[in-house]
Amino acid sequence: MSRIPFIDLKNELARILLTRGFSAEKAELAAKICAESSRDGVYSHGANRFPMYVDYIDRGIIVVDAVPSLVSASGAIERWDGNLGPGNLNAWAMMERTMELARENGMGCVALRNTNHWQRGGTYGWQAAEAGCLAMCWTNTMPLMPPWGGSDRRVGNNPFVMAVPRNDGHIVLDMAMSQFSFGRMHSHRLAGEKLPLPGGYDAAGNLSDDPEAILNGGRVLPIGYWKGSGFSLMLDLFAAALSDGSPTASFDGRTDEYGISQFFMAFDTKSLAMENSVATITAETLDYIHAAAPVEDGGEIRYPGERTQETRQENLKNGVPVDEGIWKKISKL
Amino acid sequence: MSRIPFIDLKNELARILLTRGFSAEKAELAAKICAESSRDGVYSHGANRFPMYVDYIDRGIIVVDAVPSLVSASGAIERWDGNLGPGNLNAWAMMERTMELARENGMGCVALRNTNHWQRGGTYGWQAAEAGCLAMCWTNTMPLMPPWGGSDRRVGNNPFVMAVPRNDGHIVLDMAMSQFSFGRMHSHRLAGEKLPLPGGYDAAGNLSDDPEAILNGGRVLPIGYWKGSGFSLMLDLFAAALSDGSPTASFDGRTDEYGISQFFMAFDTKSLAMENSVATITAETLDYIHAAAPVEDGGEIRYPGERTQETRQENLKNGVPVDEGIWKKISKL
Repeated sequence: MSRIPFIDLKNELARILLTRGFSAEKAELAAKICAESSRDGVYSHGANRFPMYVDYIDRGIIVVDAVPSLVSASGAIERWDGNLGPGNLNAWAMMERTMELARENGMGCVALRNTNHWQRGGTYGWQAAEAGCLAMCWTNTMPLMPPWGGSDRRVGNNPFVMAVPRNDGHIVLDMAMSQFSFGRMHSHRLAGEKLPLPGGYDAAGNLSDDPEAILNGGRVLPIGYWKGSGFSLMLDLFAAALSDGSPTASFDGRTDEYGISQFFMAFDTKSLAMENSVATITAETLDYIHAAAPVEDGGEIRYPGERTQETRQENLKNGVPVDEGIWKKISKL
Repeated sequence: MSRIPFIDLKNELARILLTRGFSAEKAELAAKICAESSRDGVYSHGANRFPMYVDYIDRGIIVVDAVPSLVSASGAIERWDGNLGPGNLNAWAMMERTMELARENGMGCVALRNTNHWQRGGTYGWQAAEAGCLAMCWTNTMPLMPPWGGSDRRVGNNPFVMAVPRNDGHIVLDMAMSQFSFGRMHSHRLAGEKLPLPGGYDAAGNLSDDPEAILNGGRVLPIGYWKGSGFSLMLDLFAAALSDGSPTASFDGRTDEYGISQFFMAFDTKSLAMENSVATITAETLDYIHAAAPVEDGGEIRYPGERTQETRQENLKNGVPVDEGIWKKISKL
């Protein structure tokens, strides 16, 4: 593991994207989104994923020049087509548009079809919180999890994000519907580590904490068993139906993920005159949570996004950890 | 367990509410909501809960005559005050209002503060789906679960509902953030049964499937461990902040639950011209899920709400199961 200064990591990624036909502005934003994921400790969706991003570009699955186009508008809700552009740039643009709608109408929604993998979902939660908005967003994915009671993969893990802005550090939840994200399971597998808790079933149908056994021939565990399976299905149906896009079912048999559906929603604290109430309610709630008796002596209770901010500070100070093999691979792109 | 014809159950509940000062119209709707929960197999939030509803009325915690009042409006999003009226009637009225906003604007949101327990959350999902809307809604609750890493109860279990309308049977997800709802744990305890899977920790800190051990001195398990804890916190913050109402933290130390915060959202399929796409996408997706290979020979894969509809038909045909003790208690109210 090397520690690369954040700015060097970002510039290296941007350099590569410029060689793939990204404009200077787009290369800068796409590189920033990716490098910030690693900076925030979500290595699986940061530098570790970058070679796959470039591979999708090189194979034409991601259309470098494409930008989202408006399909239809109905007041505070709009439907857009992602035209298979870079998923991270599409999602960023759509959250910006969602917040414009929220500033005009109090709240705004955008349903996006025909886009690509957005990398770290939390990116768009931090983006919204930084701009003073409460936000929710989610994406569908290829079939990655069995529906509850089934053994073959027919629902997505459909990452889901909620964000609340706060002066002393935003509160951002970023969770996949699988107990562990594929990114995290891949990271543990890469590091040769077990998962901290059972995260799926092995090929023989036993609960397992071995990412290798789960990813090869096994099946991942939805959060809360049947609940995560059902929730994931609903997120898929909402995203696909509201965008008039593709549901997970339509990706059956694909080896590459593209043309997915996403949904973005934002509430502008300023337009809704709720800046004070958000500050008061979050302060009261986080004080209350932090004061819980820990299960283990000296244990700490965190709010969603709290550890992210600690990791961010550490990685900005000491450099962003990047796997040596990944860094070599990136340098050759 | 007695089997009571649905109409008799509903009429008996309405009779009692009339003695508590409900208008004929309100008694009918409140009794219908409660009886339909038992009809649909959610006994914990139907007849089993009715004596507590009447107790709250008799003690003045539920204000029989109160109705929600508009606090502020901003386009498709409105803030209302529940004025401590009956929680089921308030929630019903707010979903109706949310759908009015959705018919005018494509989508609508209502944030409701200062209301009471809405009984079965799924009620308002079925209500919306029946009217041709996709919907989401959720409520906060008293502190019922420990935050992840903590041992005392400081987050709600915050039931969360999503609904998608469908001609051949609506798709409705209704889930609390605890692995098992308190209602279900109480039902299992009442029946002297273990839970089918571990649903919490006992007083000694061991995972347990014994509802008695979990409810007495133990702690409930959030779905997906830290994920359900974080999700529940976000639902609380959204509901309280958007309604300028009370967060779970403010209910610390209460023995009665009142003055809670809720959030409702609906998308009108007609206004958004998405009736065909919803029909196509749900058909494709449910066919795909149903065709999954079952884990157990002869096992079935269900979509959220599928079993509810089977139970509904069975209970309409054979009578609604009501616990003998509960039925005696109700008859004396």
